[in-house]
Amino acid sequence: MHEFRIHAQLLEDCHVLGRLRLSHLLLHRNSALPWFLLVPAVEPELVELFELDAVRRTQLEEEIDAVARFVKSFFRVEKVNIGVIGNVVRQLHVHVIGRRPGDPCWPRVAWGNLTSGRPWEPARLSEITAALLTQLELGQDVL
Amino acid sequence: MHEFRIHAQLLEDCHVLGRLRLSHLLLHRNSALPWFLLVPAVEPELVELFELDAVRRTQLEEEIDAVARFVKSFFRVEKVNIGVIGNVVRQLHVHVIGRRPGDPCWPRVAWGNLTSGRPWEPARLSEITAALLTQLELGQDVL
Repeated sequence: MHEFRIHAQLLEDCHVLGRLRLSHLLLHRNSALPWFLLVPAVEPELVELFELDAVRRTQLEEEIDAVARFVKSFFRVEKVNIGVIGNVVRQLHVHVIGRRPGDPCWPRVAWGNLTSGRPWEPARLSEITAALLTQLELGQDVL
Repeated sequence: MHEFRIHAQLLEDCHVLGRLRLSHLLLHRNSALPWFLLVPAVEPELVELFELDAVRRTQLEEEIDAVARFVKSFFRVEKVNIGVIGNVVRQLHVHVIGRRPGDPCWPRVAWGNLTSGRPWEPARLSEITAALLTQLELGQDVL
């Protein structure tokens, strides 16, 4: 068995909030947008969604939907943007980003258009994590 | 029953190639990238993936994966980018874009970064459609 590690670039960009059944759940450090990342703990050679076996593909979809639902309701956004890109960081990861008119990138995509911004306030970060724990059965693990 | 119509902006930007079980399959007119769109024929008020019922959610995932597999193998790209955005055109649609080092946007995302380019040659367009018909059970319908 290989030991799964989240890519260093993702760890630099994001807080690690905890673990869903398949994926680690991360939050982008820039608080301008509720920008989450799901990083499924899978073999490093699996970099496309269609490369996952059916069980993990379905599990990942459920986790994407659960996080998207959470983002939509908790942050009261107008639209959820989902992306699987991986041109720079090849490790499979899924962006789930809450968007609304007037946010710093609207209506453009967040990727490549988000300038530097404030970090999350620690109190807000705790609030988000607490809500996720309740609503998503997020397990917190130490990384 | 409402009559399903593909959004005018998508029709302006794309060729309609045909119909999968749930989705219409479109190809962006700019030939610089193999940029496909899936437009599931669902009620107009369903704009997020998580708003689909389980049967259509699964069907859409299968279609996304099938098109992504096709893009990867037919165009021999290095990475497939998938996006569900909808900030401008709210109608649910899924981007499946083949990417490779040296393409006009690499490694940036295609959204917002693709400048005007050549249209597809009619012969190439026929080739792509023929391959899709064989590999994806694409039904061709007149829109």
